[in-house]
Parts: sequence; structure tokens; C-alpha cells
Amino acid sequence: MFTKETYINRRSVLLEKMKGETGIAVFVGNVESPAQYRDNGYKWRQDSNWLYLFGLDEPRMAATIDLETGEETLYADDFGIDDIIWMGPQPSVSSLAAEVGIKNSASYGAFDVAVLNAVVRGRKVHFLPASRYYNACKIASLLGLDTEAVFSSCKKGCKEASEALVRAIVSMRLVKEEQEIAELEKAGALGFEMHTAARRGIRPGRIEQEIVGAMEAVVLSKGWGVSFPTILTQHGEIFHCHTHDLPVAPGKLMVVDAGAETNSHYASDHTRTYPTSGKFSTVQKDIYSIVYQCNELAFSLIKPGIPYRDVHLATCRHILGGLKDLGLVSGDIDECLDLGIAGLFMPHGLGHNMGMDVHDMEDLGENLVGYDDDQSRSSQLGLGSLRMARRLKPGNVITDEPGIYFIPDLIELWKREGTDKGHVNYDKLKDYYTFGGIRLEDDVLVTKDGARRIGASRLPIAPDDVEEAMAADNN
Amino acid sequence: MFTKETYINRRSVLLEKMKGETGIAVFVGNVESPAQYRDNGYKWRQDSNWLYLFGLDEPRMAATIDLETGEETLYADDFGIDDIIWMGPQPSVSSLAAEVGIKNSASYGAFDVAVLNAVVRGRKVHFLPASRYYNACKIASLLGLDTEAVFSSCKKGCKEASEALVRAIVSMRLVKEEQEIAELEKAGALGFEMHTAARRGIRPGRIEQEIVGAMEAVVLSKGWGVSFPTILTQHGEIFHCHTHDLPVAPGKLMVVDAGAETNSHYASDHTRTYPTSGKFSTVQKDIYSIVYQCNELAFSLIKPGIPYRDVHLATCRHILGGLKDLGLVSGDIDECLDLGIAGLFMPHGLGHNMGMDVHDMEDLGENLVGYDDDQSRSSQLGLGSLRMARRLKPGNVITDEPGIYFIPDLIELWKREGTDKGHVNYDKLKDYYTFGGIRLEDDVLVTKDGARRIGASRLPIAPDDVEEAMAADNN
Repeated sequence: MFTKETYINRRSVLLEKMKGETGIAVFVGNVESPAQYRDNGYKWRQDSNWLYLFGLDEPRMAATIDLETGEETLYADDFGIDDIIWMGPQPSVSSLAAEVGIKNSASYGAFDVAVLNAVVRGRKVHFLPASRYYNACKIASLLGLDTEAVFSSCKKGCKEASEALVRAIVSMRLVKEEQEIAELEKAGALGFEMHTAARRGIRPGRIEQEIVGAMEAVVLSKGWGVSFPTILTQHGEIFHCHTHDLPVAPGKLMVVDAGAETNSHYASDHTRTYPTSGKFSTVQKDIYSIVYQCNELAFSLIKPGIPYRDVHLATCRHILGGLKDLGLVSGDIDECLDLGIAGLFMPHGLGHNMGMDVHDMEDLGENLVGYDDDQSRSSQLGLGSLRMARRLKPGNVITDEPGIYFIPDLIELWKREGTDKGHVNYDKLKDYYTFGGIRLEDDVLVTKDGARRIGASRLPIAPDDVEEAMAADNN
Repeated sequence: MFTKETYINRRSVLLEKMKGETGIAVFVGNVESPAQYRDNGYKWRQDSNWLYLFGLDEPRMAATIDLETGEETLYADDFGIDDIIWMGPQPSVSSLAAEVGIKNSASYGAFDVAVLNAVVRGRKVHFLPASRYYNACKIASLLGLDTEAVFSSCKKGCKEASEALVRAIVSMRLVKEEQEIAELEKAGALGFEMHTAARRGIRPGRIEQEIVGAMEAVVLSKGWGVSFPTILTQHGEIFHCHTHDLPVAPGKLMVVDAGAETNSHYASDHTRTYPTSGKFSTVQKDIYSIVYQCNELAFSLIKPGIPYRDVHLATCRHILGGLKDLGLVSGDIDECLDLGIAGLFMPHGLGHNMGMDVHDMEDLGENLVGYDDDQSRSSQLGLGSLRMARRLKPGNVITDEPGIYFIPDLIELWKREGTDKGHVNYDKLKDYYTFGGIRLEDDVLVTKDGARRIGASRLPIAPDDVEEAMAADNN
């Protein structure tokens, strides 16, 4: 796990990166998040930026860093006898502060005073976009801002949050430390177990929810929980399908996109697509093979220096080539690529950064996280959804997740609007309206001279290996 | 499941109960609740009052009821092509409204306009205390109120929320309908399975978290999830111990307090306490037997007409008698009772209402839910924490959960302050400082002429039955 020195070092790097900025940087940790009612919370999860800089995995804390003097203060309340009855003996705030190398501590309420004091003295207050309503409300009310302007406000460039602070933290969290990679490997191993439980659960007649329960059992037994709501669906063409009430039907494709979060809060994110009957049909295998080749192709291209946007485009080209062979698109591949026709079949990006958040740092603003001065965001369907376009660097951890989907509503829309300029064979596509979708995803670390998949074992992915594994599961 | 007529009927009863009030009643359903980042939510859970009145289990909806004309409007946004790609085809808002018997529908933004219009015209706006920050912020900003005054604002009497509306809904939700009882029975059955998995998992050497994972698997496979964060701890003296990192040690007591929530969002809540080695020691059995007798005693007293406060006090008396037999307290039992000495050993109430929320309607204000003009809240430790004191009525669903705990910090505090006026044998109590705690909880429906436990099967609870079940588990 991470030591006191890790946190001291990260904050000192941050301070160095913020050199030249004046004022204070303020950080609000999470509070418990109500589920059914205020005091019946969802499972406790600390804010990721807070964890990265301060490590303390407890609710209701805040901190300030004076960018001019380097002075750091932790704000939280000590416990009284009532808290001790309900939650057991607790360490003092000053000892928690010392655990992560912070010298000063004060009450939680003193944070508000410190911020207001800075405002009154005309000092600049740097803050990060908030990920939760409570944090947004708190900062907005202290600084007299609109809540929405504070709440993950950097989606398309920062409005009120501090762009300097965002850029500094993004530059740090984008490159994973050795210890972080070790934690990601643990998440990958847990994700492997979780996906294995899923694959073993897929048998015609079972209810999807039963499989999801078995997957989450693996994660909850050894880790924090799922790194995002599990997607397990026979409607792979619906990206975020979170209902699990269908029985497994024979002859369908089951997309399983799921990840684990370790107790140290690092994520995994894998997708596999299984034939519910244990064997792919010819039509299924044709499409599956294209997606599989795209996944391998992307992995082979990942290395320091290449913009991930180029890797995305290489997979788009491969998809178009494959679909051309099947007679679903026609004409010049480059022209199809320029027209964005790959987006009709893969209307999402090839991948995203991953770390403590499965879409790492998404709330710091996708454009600041996944784009830089080299790369600007496209408005095309698919490419426009690419969350990571940057030139790759060693230490980056990204997902490699090509997919092909047949979305009847979208196909009909393109047909009506003629978006494809005659390159799409709509007649033939009719046969695919109940096909669903296929996505295949691995987590990849960019190394000094290439790439390495996260996780000691790779989930079966080649079509024959998948069928073989499913046959073995059923014995 | 509940039909359209159920919801129409509930709202018409509500309107009837609000007769004489002017203005409009406004309801804000939940939105997704961010976990790691804004768009990575915890598992979706609708607001319970919303579910009760409107049934629609979808995020980002609001409603108004005109208390003078009875006109009802549902506010939500229809889906566009982007939503369809990500979430599949969705029903229109007007068809959702029709599903639950509402004639008018409008956009989500139109809700704000409707509320502001009412404000401008000087009409009264009735709202319920909010259970989440988003809902609190929304109402507070529309009505120009302080967020904290809206956020579960009835804890000790309503500040800004409508007491008339709260009282009307409390009077309805306190008495469960037949269909609700059927759903609670399902939750009880799922809770039984969950607790059975827990008992089977308790073996020296296993990590607590592994047992918790197995329990949650049961729930997630068949229901929504846990009805509250699972308590599984060898530190039973800590009421809300949510860490599960300890290995199961031999010779300890394991408190398992856990509940399931069905897909229809009804809760169960049971507690059992197990000897980690499969057999109680003599000291453990002595205390366990007192708690077990209290649980049975309370159940035998539950019937229409008795204030639950009296049932609480009867168990307190039994605890004091039992501890006197063991030489831990001395003197006149009535005097001990008046001094609140039972609260040193059971510093919580005997039980609470249960329904869609495990502490049913807690955010409508414990005093309005669990107390009435007959009963006022005590300030004594234990009795003061009693969430349900009311005279019982057929259709009430309550928990019966006596416990005995040895909390060293609390005992030392009483000793220093002399709170017990010489009735507590502190020397002898020293032997119990590592004992932990015991709690035994069932869910009980008040029937026409008595009571019935929820759930077809009762989890083993008599000391011999527990030991027998654990022996069978290990075969």
C-alpha cells in the first residue's frame, strides 16, 4: 500500500507544478451518500483526487494548501462519546493528519472560515470540479458561485474551477506510479475472477440478475465493489443497459462489460462477448472475428509516441474493411473513414484512461484529460466520443475496447438522412437488426517501449478459446 | 406487483387527507447518485415517497398535485437518439404518466416553472423533506430556502417542509397494505437466505469480507441489494461497524445485522449473533439467553393498542433482572429502570418501523413517524433512541431487536460520572470488557389481534438451535 512519503511527495510535486500561482488550493473530501434516506448511505467511497493527494479514506474531511507558503491543513472533527458508541474508538484528527504528513489540523467548520478568510483578503481560491452534489454545493456557497458551475464543471474546459490545478493533477495522475500499477494489477486479477464467474454463469434459462449477483459476490468478497455498474446484456447494441431481468436465451450474444475496484480503489474494466449457447453461429463469428482482430491490432500499435486517436482510426479502418468483405459497406475505405461511417457501427471511442476511476479523472474534464494541444475533439459520431486521444506516454493505462453494434434506430436515422452517401448496404443490414452487438476490451499499460496488458491472465478472447472455455465450464 | 389503481388510490387518499390545505404539493424524484465521478453512479434507487405515490422507477422525474383542483402533472424529458444509443428505446413520458394514472405530462424543466409560478401567485408550496442533496438543492433554490432546512428537515419537527403533507403520508405508509405485506414477506424470505449464507460462512480463519460478499451475492442475485450497509462484526459493542477486514477468531461472538431489499424496494432487517466456534461459552450463553428472552417477551406483547414504548420498557426491565441475577447490577429494578440503567447495556431502542425504508420514513422525521400526541421522546440513553413509541395498529411493521453490549468507554464514563447511583457493579463488569455485544432481531407485523413474524421461516435463534444449525452447516 501507499506510504506517508507517497502522499508527501505527490503534494510536493503538485506544489512545484503550481509554482507561479497565488492563493490557496482547497479540497473537499466526500461525505456519505444517501441511498434510501439521509442516514442510510450507499457504500462509502472517498473522492479519487482526495485519495490521491491525502490518502485518508474517511468521510467529512477537507484540506487547504497555501500555494505561496506550502502550508497544509487538514479539517475534520474529532469524535465524541456518541460516535464511539456507534462507530467504536476513532483516531484523532491530528494523528490522521500526521499519518499522511500534514502538520496542521483544525475542525471541519474551520475549513469554511479558512476559505472565507482567503476570499475576504482577495486571495485566489483554486478548486477542482466537484463530483458530487454535496461537494459542489459546499464550494459554490462558500465562493458565491452557481452550483452547476462547480459540479464537474470542466466537461468542456473549466468555467469556475482552477484550470491550473486541474492541469497539474491530470499531468500527475495520467502517469501511473509503480505502486499504482501494482494496485491496478490486483484489480485486473479480481476482474479476471469476476468475468470468469460471469462466463460460467451463462446458460440458457438462467436470469441475467443471478449471474450479476455471482459476479458481484467475487468483487465484494475481496475488493471494494464494482468499478462501474455491471453491463451484462443480450442487447449489446444498447451501451448502458443496466436491467438484468431477462432469462438467458439460446443463440444470442451476451455482452459482459464489468470491472472490479480493489479496497485501495483502483479499477479494472474488461469486456467479453459470449455466445449464449456456447458456440458462435457463422454470422456471429464473422462479426466477432473483426472485433477480435481490432482488439489485437490496437494492442500491437500501442507504444509511447503514438496518439491514441490514430489507434482508434486504425481500428475504424479495420472495421470498415471487414464489413466491406461481408458486403455491408462498399466503396473506398478512406472515403468511408472520412465520412465517419465506422461510427455507425462503433459509435464510441476505442478507449479511455483508467486508474482510480474507471474513466480516469472524467470529472476533471475529458478534454483536459484525454486531449492536449496536439489533439482536438472531433464532432463525428464515434470519434467524437473518444475519451483519450493523446500521444501515449509510458505509465499511461488505457482500455482497448473496439466493438461492432447494429442499432436499428440509428441505422434507420442514417438511411433517412443519407449520412453515408451511398456507402452502406441498408438492405443487407436488415438481417442484422436482431444481432445485438459485440465489444472486446482489455486494460493496457503503456511501457517504455511498447505495451503490456494488465492482469496476469488474459480472459479467453479468440473465438475458439472462448468456445473451448465455455465447453469446459459446462463440464 | 402494484397496479395503476394502487397509485391512483393512494394519491386520492392523500388528496382527501390534505383537504382544507391550499396550494400545490410538489414531489422531486431522485436522480442518479455519483459514486466515483458524476456519470459513474451508485446503483439506481428511486425515492421511497415517490415510489409510494407514483411508482415510476426512473431517474429525473418530478410531479405536482394541485390540492385545490386535484390536477396532477408528471414532469420528465423524452428521450432523443443519443439516449436511445446508450440506453435503448424508451417509453414516452406521457405513456409513463398514463401507466400510473396521471393525465398531464410536461418536460422536466417545466416543473421549475410550475413551482415558480405558484410562488409568484402566492400559492402555498407543500414539499417533503429531501433525502438527498440534489433534491434538497433543487427545492431550496426554487423556494429561496436554505438547503439544510430542506434536507431531511423534519428530524425534530418540520422547519420548512409541509407538516400537513408529512403527517398525511406518515399516516398512510405506517399501515401497510396487503400487497405491501406480500412484498415484505418476499424481502423476509430473501433476508433468510442472506443470513443463512452468513451463518454458513462463519468459520475461524475466514476474512469477514468474504462472508459479506457471499451474503450480498444472494441479495444481488434476486433483489435490489442490501436494505442498509451490512453489519457483520466481532465487535458487536460497536453498533455501526462497517469494516470487514478481520479474520474470524475462535471464541468470539459475531453480530450479523443485515437486510435485503427486493426489486420492488421493500426491506427486511434481521440480526443474529453467532459463537464463532459454533458453541457458546457459559458467559456468552448467560447473556445470550437474556437477549433471547427479551426478543420473545417483546413479540408476546406486540398487539394492537399497546404503545411500543411500553414494550421497550418491558424488555429493559427484563435485561435489568437478568443482569441482577448475574450480579452486574443491584438494588430495586424499578429504581434502576427509572435511572435509565438499562441504557448502559442497551443504548438503543427496541425497534423501528420498516417498509420501503429499513427505518421506514426516517427522513419524514422520527418524531412524526414514531411518536404521536400520546408519546413524547425521552432524553435517556437508550429510551431516547427509540424510533417507534406509538400505540400499535394492525398493519404496522416493526422490528423487535433487543441487545446487550459491553462498551468499555461508555462504562468508564458512567463510572466517572456516577450516573448509576451505585447500582452497577463496575468491578465485575471488567470481566466483560472484551465480551462484545449481542443483538437478536426479527421483523414483526401487527395483526388484528396480535402479531406475526415476517418471513415463512424463522432464522434459528434459541441457543441450542443456533448451535445445532452451525454444527449442521459444518457437515
